[in-house]
Amino acid sequence: MFKVTFKFENGSDVEVFAHEGDNLLEVARLANVAIDAPCSGNAACGKCRVKLVNGEVESKKTLHITDEEYAQGWRLSCVSKICADVEVLVPDIASAYRSRMKVADLDSAEELKIFEKTKSDLAAAGIEFKNDLEVVSLEMAEPSLDDTMPDNERLQWAIEAACGVSEVKMPFFVLKKLADVLRKSSFRVQCVIRRAGDKVEVLDVLPSDEEAKVCGLAVDIGTTSVAGLVINMQNGEILAKASTGNGQIRYGADVINRIIEQQKDGGRKKLQDAIIKETLNPLIAEMCRAAKIRTTQIYRMCVAGNTTMNHLFAGVDADPVRMEPYIPTFFETGSMFAQDLGLKIYPHARIIISPNIGSYVGGDITAGTLASAMWNREEMTLFIDLGTNGELVFGNAEFMMSCACSAGPAFEGGDISCGMRATDGAIEACTIDKETMNPTFDVIGDEGQKPVGICGSGIIDLISELFRCGIISPKGKFIREGERIRHDKYGMGSYVLAFKDEAASVKDIEITEVDIDSFIRAKGAIFSAIRVMLQTLDFDVSMIDHVLVAGGIGSGINMRNAVNIGMFPDIEMEKFTYIGNSSLSGAYTILCSKEAEEKVADVAHNMTYLELSNEPTYMDEFVACCFLPHTDAALFPSLEMK
Amino acid sequence: MFKVTFKFENGSDVEVFAHEGDNLLEVARLANVAIDAPCSGNAACGKCRVKLVNGEVESKKTLHITDEEYAQGWRLSCVSKICADVEVLVPDIASAYRSRMKVADLDSAEELKIFEKTKSDLAAAGIEFKNDLEVVSLEMAEPSLDDTMPDNERLQWAIEAACGVSEVKMPFFVLKKLADVLRKSSFRVQCVIRRAGDKVEVLDVLPSDEEAKVCGLAVDIGTTSVAGLVINMQNGEILAKASTGNGQIRYGADVINRIIEQQKDGGRKKLQDAIIKETLNPLIAEMCRAAKIRTTQIYRMCVAGNTTMNHLFAGVDADPVRMEPYIPTFFETGSMFAQDLGLKIYPHARIIISPNIGSYVGGDITAGTLASAMWNREEMTLFIDLGTNGELVFGNAEFMMSCACSAGPAFEGGDISCGMRATDGAIEACTIDKETMNPTFDVIGDEGQKPVGICGSGIIDLISELFRCGIISPKGKFIREGERIRHDKYGMGSYVLAFKDEAASVKDIEITEVDIDSFIRAKGAIFSAIRVMLQTLDFDVSMIDHVLVAGGIGSGINMRNAVNIGMFPDIEMEKFTYIGNSSLSGAYTILCSKEAEEKVADVAHNMTYLELSNEPTYMDEFVACCFLPHTDAALFPSLEMK
Repeated sequence: MFKVTFKFENGSDVEVFAHEGDNLLEVARLANVAIDAPCSGNAACGKCRVKLVNGEVESKKTLHITDEEYAQGWRLSCVSKICADVEVLVPDIASAYRSRMKVADLDSAEELKIFEKTKSDLAAAGIEFKNDLEVVSLEMAEPSLDDTMPDNERLQWAIEAACGVSEVKMPFFVLKKLADVLRKSSFRVQCVIRRAGDKVEVLDVLPSDEEAKVCGLAVDIGTTSVAGLVINMQNGEILAKASTGNGQIRYGADVINRIIEQQKDGGRKKLQDAIIKETLNPLIAEMCRAAKIRTTQIYRMCVAGNTTMNHLFAGVDADPVRMEPYIPTFFETGSMFAQDLGLKIYPHARIIISPNIGSYVGGDITAGTLASAMWNREEMTLFIDLGTNGELVFGNAEFMMSCACSAGPAFEGGDISCGMRATDGAIEACTIDKETMNPTFDVIGDEGQKPVGICGSGIIDLISELFRCGIISPKGKFIREGERIRHDKYGMGSYVLAFKDEAASVKDIEITEVDIDSFIRAKGAIFSAIRVMLQTLDFDVSMIDHVLVAGGIGSGINMRNAVNIGMFPDIEMEKFTYIGNSSLSGAYTILCSKEAEEKVADVAHNMTYLELSNEPTYMDEFVACCFLPHTDAALFPSLEMK
Repeated sequence: MFKVTFKFENGSDVEVFAHEGDNLLEVARLANVAIDAPCSGNAACGKCRVKLVNGEVESKKTLHITDEEYAQGWRLSCVSKICADVEVLVPDIASAYRSRMKVADLDSAEELKIFEKTKSDLAAAGIEFKNDLEVVSLEMAEPSLDDTMPDNERLQWAIEAACGVSEVKMPFFVLKKLADVLRKSSFRVQCVIRRAGDKVEVLDVLPSDEEAKVCGLAVDIGTTSVAGLVINMQNGEILAKASTGNGQIRYGADVINRIIEQQKDGGRKKLQDAIIKETLNPLIAEMCRAAKIRTTQIYRMCVAGNTTMNHLFAGVDADPVRMEPYIPTFFETGSMFAQDLGLKIYPHARIIISPNIGSYVGGDITAGTLASAMWNREEMTLFIDLGTNGELVFGNAEFMMSCACSAGPAFEGGDISCGMRATDGAIEACTIDKETMNPTFDVIGDEGQKPVGICGSGIIDLISELFRCGIISPKGKFIREGERIRHDKYGMGSYVLAFKDEAASVKDIEITEVDIDSFIRAKGAIFSAIRVMLQTLDFDVSMIDHVLVAGGIGSGINMRNAVNIGMFPDIEMEKFTYIGNSSLSGAYTILCSKEAEEKVADVAHNMTYLELSNEPTYMDEFVACCFLPHTDAALFPSLEMK
């Protein structure tokens, strides 16, 4: 046995023991040390780098570690075996992609605009913003020797009288606290209730002098990123917003790797803990702090996520999602409560899961489609959600078709050596001077924020600019030389966007041919999916009235550049709109409105699903798309004109 | 700090540390060492005796320890203080009253007769023996690329088709195992379902090759004793029967002391653990072993107990039950499940609690009244439940009135120095030769079983015989001399029923004047309650058509002797029937029959409650009854004639 010490830049240490020959990344996972490995330990992404401080590991050399870096002690943990006592530094960069939690500053109204917009769009489409939770204040006669009704009946009668209902259901956990609350408050209480027709369910009972605030939690669980909103259920007001990385990322960047992990012994619990205990509970705690509420004041939650995320969240076996014929346990499910999942909100808070419609089109898409209001329009809308999976919905009030393609995590900065989520330190936009080949870029964050990496929208700009300036070929190979262009000993080219000393990073921020190739495949997956879906319906890109782009790619997305690289169809620019995290917007509206909850079920039932892998033309279309902008230049007439 | 070691006769030890001056009984309680203290540590019952093995305690002398015993090292733990390291033996006798668990031998048909009788009585009264649990076998088409319905909808559809219902509710815990069970069994499963009109709730899903047995659990939770039945819900067959002492007894013999204990810090959890974890879970495990079923095959439970027992079982504050105006949290309650309480049966098994009707007339009485079928008779019935509280119900199909009196634990052997429950080793009947004053007695158990103590029915016989033989006065004082009659140095008399060497006990089995006094007060409480209740209704004992006697006093109860000591009214002997544990019979029928469950609610609603302490004559009546047989001999004319 050898001692393995993981050291962090914040000064903390984790010590564990391991056997000779154990894989360092596995040792880290078992010790619950979060080292990102979006490729799930296949030496493909280069994210799991650690630096030797003391001792040695037996490590293969890979493309991701230069000779100089190797000499400095950098190793990829996924290809390193324990052979002695060792101390390694886990650099912050190893979790830059995963990234720290960010609580939004709601005073900058920008953050909230998108949700207000969704709400007004849906209101215009006839959705009433009203939910079934209420607070009622009650004053009961105190019992006496002549009035010996037991506590539960006393409260039930009072609610029946106050609400004009004939049936009051009181769950066990309310019963347990009843005697105490009634007597402490001299039989003057407030009840949080759910009203359904002539019936009322009591969710909570509180003394009359405590503030009874009924809050809700909307969460978008993305494969890579997780975002949440805390709202006041009584008026829909947003009280807090925050986002963070999905803690499951250390078990793989995509849903397939995570499903494989959850199949292992104890894996289902591990994956569920990673999302609930490590990701959501801290996120909820932070939001509640920002919102100045208690976590137990969250009486309802709406989750929008893809089918696999929903299953892992619920702790339900996701393996059948991955295996032909790809059958999930559920599309829709009721009767799931916070306490069943270990969520630290009100224990009996109901969890609404935005419905899935297939193994690869999930609740994030139904929620996003709801939020887009496309189900209420005559005009044809193409809705594109750029997540780790790319999902598309096309249609209008008459019909909607959806499909999914595996874009990989590139849009969220995964699979890209200097990629990161669209958060502080991310280069979100850039231009390149055709002459000098020097870049100019925008970094997310406060004035003076140094770049840490590059997010999806930045990569689109970068590739588009590299191509426009003739620095890379249509195949993504470097074809010019210069100070910022390098080739390693294997001949792989790269472009340095920011040198180490300009950046808040341990290495230069650069994009390599491998990165560009990953991104070209990602954008190719999207464009080919659009092509095949429209062909199936006998539609043409010219018949698209609106393109709504959603996802964590970043609000800085330049649609023109996205068209330039052949990611989106070459139609009028004014048809494109970035709608942000529509999955979260959808979850927010479902939470606020009983009618929205019913509508999203409707949307799910009315949406057909196209399985692209069953379409004979898809593979050919995909290959043709892996080119800048496309092997068929005629598909991008506006580029020709430039 | 001193080390305190509790040694047990089975050879096991428990070691803890305690401060100087700590009370030994408290130290035992904190260490979870079960020493019976029915008087709750007030030096009144003498049950908490331990024997010094090494070291010393600072201990007061009491009436309960003779000089000889004191010299041998016997101490009452409730009056002993820690003053040094000490080792004490906790003798089995200290838990004889609590007694070991006993699993019934169902092959001796006797055990089951009483339940069969109840069932046929209720069937004759029009109750249909049918419940709402069923097993359905289902065979589903396996999913394919052309049939991609998710698992939950597939199962729901199959159930809808098989049962002809329109709504199927599938709780979360079924969803969690669904994918696995369906695939392991090639989509051929059995479901345990609950049918309610046009709706079905799925309780469990099992592979088709596993035996789907739907069992139920009926439990009578008495203050002193707990008894249970495991039944096959599909045909009502009794699969196992067992009884044991209520583990809460070390927190006090009566409900008042237990309520006081549960008010202390962490007390509610302690009392709940004592009944659920220490008493019921082991009892359930034993019964399931005897019944050859898994504990998770118990899908429903019915509990009959007094109001305090119900509250402590549910972990609900019982303090308001004790404090004027005596208001419990609930009379009736639904939606309580096994997992909420930590009961080791099917986690989502519903718990039916036989309804309470007041703070001192609980679910044991409503269940017992249901079982008695008195609610269906023209003739007047007096139902008497001789538990730690004595409860009476009087009436017929037209009306029923109930009342409760505090008899104390004497009927179950509590408060009696050699008292014990009616189980192996208990003297259940005796006669005394008037000349020699030598006794003859029957002991419960196998041939050759030596006596350990005396149970309620034995005490009735003993007192009746002592009185008949002129050995004790009408006030219960010893007035004859003999070998078996002793007086201690304070002048307190006693009668030895069995000398130490004839008994399986560390001391002689005897009855003292203190014991006789306790019992006279207990029987006086019962008889005065009967008197006052009948007076309130303007009834006379001659108008009673049936007297049904229930409770743990023992099936050996001699009604003639009970009349002789003035416990029951002096009416024709053929009107008396011992109906055993009617609370358990009632729980059994509620479990078997939906109609019985509805009927017991009806019975509860239609029963009026008489609060004896509000009746001005009660105290005088009680005092007049504390005499053998009664101060007013005219009330017992048949005794005069003898």
